[in-house]
Amino acid sequence: MRTLKWDAANEYLKIIDQRLLPSQLEFLTLDNYKAVAKAIHQMAVRGAPAIGVAAAYGLALAAMQSKAADLESLGTDLRTAARELEQARPTAVNLAWALKRILSLLDGFEGDTKALARRILEEAKQMAAEDVHTNKRIAAFGADLIEDGDTIIHHCNTGSLATVDWGTALGVIRFAHEQGKRIHVFVDETRPRLQGARLTAWELQQLEIPFDIISDNAAGYFLEKGFVNKVLFGADRVARNGDVANKIGSYMLALAAKDNRVPVYSVFPISTVDLSLESGDLIPIEERDQQEVLNIQLQNRQVAPDGATARNPAFDITPNRLITAFVTEKGIVNPPFIRNLPRIMGE
Amino acid sequence: MRTLKWDAANEYLKIIDQRLLPSQLEFLTLDNYKAVAKAIHQMAVRGAPAIGVAAAYGLALAAMQSKAADLESLGTDLRTAARELEQARPTAVNLAWALKRILSLLDGFEGDTKALARRILEEAKQMAAEDVHTNKRIAAFGADLIEDGDTIIHHCNTGSLATVDWGTALGVIRFAHEQGKRIHVFVDETRPRLQGARLTAWELQQLEIPFDIISDNAAGYFLEKGFVNKVLFGADRVARNGDVANKIGSYMLALAAKDNRVPVYSVFPISTVDLSLESGDLIPIEERDQQEVLNIQLQNRQVAPDGATARNPAFDITPNRLITAFVTEKGIVNPPFIRNLPRIMGE
Repeated sequence: MRTLKWDAANEYLKIIDQRLLPSQLEFLTLDNYKAVAKAIHQMAVRGAPAIGVAAAYGLALAAMQSKAADLESLGTDLRTAARELEQARPTAVNLAWALKRILSLLDGFEGDTKALARRILEEAKQMAAEDVHTNKRIAAFGADLIEDGDTIIHHCNTGSLATVDWGTALGVIRFAHEQGKRIHVFVDETRPRLQGARLTAWELQQLEIPFDIISDNAAGYFLEKGFVNKVLFGADRVARNGDVANKIGSYMLALAAKDNRVPVYSVFPISTVDLSLESGDLIPIEERDQQEVLNIQLQNRQVAPDGATARNPAFDITPNRLITAFVTEKGIVNPPFIRNLPRIMGE
Repeated sequence: MRTLKWDAANEYLKIIDQRLLPSQLEFLTLDNYKAVAKAIHQMAVRGAPAIGVAAAYGLALAAMQSKAADLESLGTDLRTAARELEQARPTAVNLAWALKRILSLLDGFEGDTKALARRILEEAKQMAAEDVHTNKRIAAFGADLIEDGDTIIHHCNTGSLATVDWGTALGVIRFAHEQGKRIHVFVDETRPRLQGARLTAWELQQLEIPFDIISDNAAGYFLEKGFVNKVLFGADRVARNGDVANKIGSYMLALAAKDNRVPVYSVFPISTVDLSLESGDLIPIEERDQQEVLNIQLQNRQVAPDGATARNPAFDITPNRLITAFVTEKGIVNPPFIRNLPRIMGE
């Protein structure tokens, strides 16, 4: 079961509606690029790699449905769609990376608009396939870091649901588990949207990997008590110096790990690295609707008093000094990141 | 409106049921010591100072209702009741402190069992009155630390609801506000029981102090961005060396504050200090029902998948190195705490 899938017969994108898990497993049909942008913005599909591929399919839909008669006006339509898709979520760079990769197909394309639309769809499919392949490579590299008997704190959801399939940080845990290593996972519930309690717990159950859900607040306690061997999370954008933008709470978790000499691994495909930004403070941080904090996600039950206001940044920056190493499809990247990240990117 | 109040006509303790706030303001009648222990355990009444005074009233009820014919057997009954009350919540030392203070009345008491029961009730009332007085002194000392224009992160609830009246850390904010200082509060929602989003937000609304609720995860973000000037929280037990047991999440918050050079103040009455424990790792940490994590508090709506398990420590230890100063009714206590805490305790 894949997070997202192209339905060739009907020519639309089908995604798991992640807002309803774990109580309901339902699929959403996205039959135009605006629907894709909306699904990304509302986090029906989420996870940096998954939204990158979803956006690529969004451009395929835009190309197929454009009324443009020539390549030039199709290009205009596609750039309009790309802007809207990119604005759906500003922090994860995979989204911008995927859109750029699709738009680059326009350069010197030879053929008519229909051929270009077909080419874009092929590229989106290719990106989906690459994502799974990349994740398995990441997992194999990362599993070497995991030892038999490890207890791991994992933040947010980085599993199959966050990618096309297999996952990043959770993929590492899965790979190590399949190697026969005994692992216990403390699943950060990950307020405000509870991706840990809802999605990661659901995936771990299916993989039969033992876990306990903890409130994000409790990560420090278990680290203090010496119960934790590793901290793993993904990344939404990594700056040239190795500062990591990831789901809100990653920074405090990494601090608590560092304070207890527990290694912190950030796991991602290299499409997550943005060499154009010198450091993490340049990464735009999305601030989402305050209702996600005031009401408990999905339940539409108000927790705070009427009239109370909230602030809701969706990501934070974990400074490079708190990261032990990165795990990518090109292998483990050790500090100094300012030297080793550009190197692995082939710069 | 007081968190708890002795009803003299009916001879019972009346408390605000804090589990129902902010959507309902209802009162619970506690007419025997077992009901008091249950209310403390279930957190219908909560906050270290409040549960201390509630437990004192619990012993008054036990004394008034005991069938003991002489002081010796009344003493036995009271010690039985005290054990049950103390076990209701193991971390906050104010509970043990209050029980010890009441039991000390037995030493050399002259009079009959009825007179002793009356004396215990008077002592409980005295402790309630002292609590309010103490909190106002704490607030006056603490307000000197607050500057006009400060933005403060506050964890859990330390307001009127956590005490008999006025509060500790929130009392400091209230005092500074009444001095005319402009303050903005970032209210940590405080998972799993959401005392911040439910109780602190409710109190701040009534005090007309501006605030935004944030997920606990977001405290690091706002600190990183330089938006925060102070971090304030209470304490449930403070060891001789200044290590602080407080609501789960305090440690990670203090780490993030320290990492950004933002001062951290722990605010409490000196009855919170336990000089008998050398350091924080000796403080017993209550682990509560995992349902508080799996279901969102009060709503009885399940968030995690069926069959998922959780861990739920209610407190953590903030090492003394992360605390800038303590605020008590005897004034501000600066490091080194190992010297200055015993001094302020009169040792």
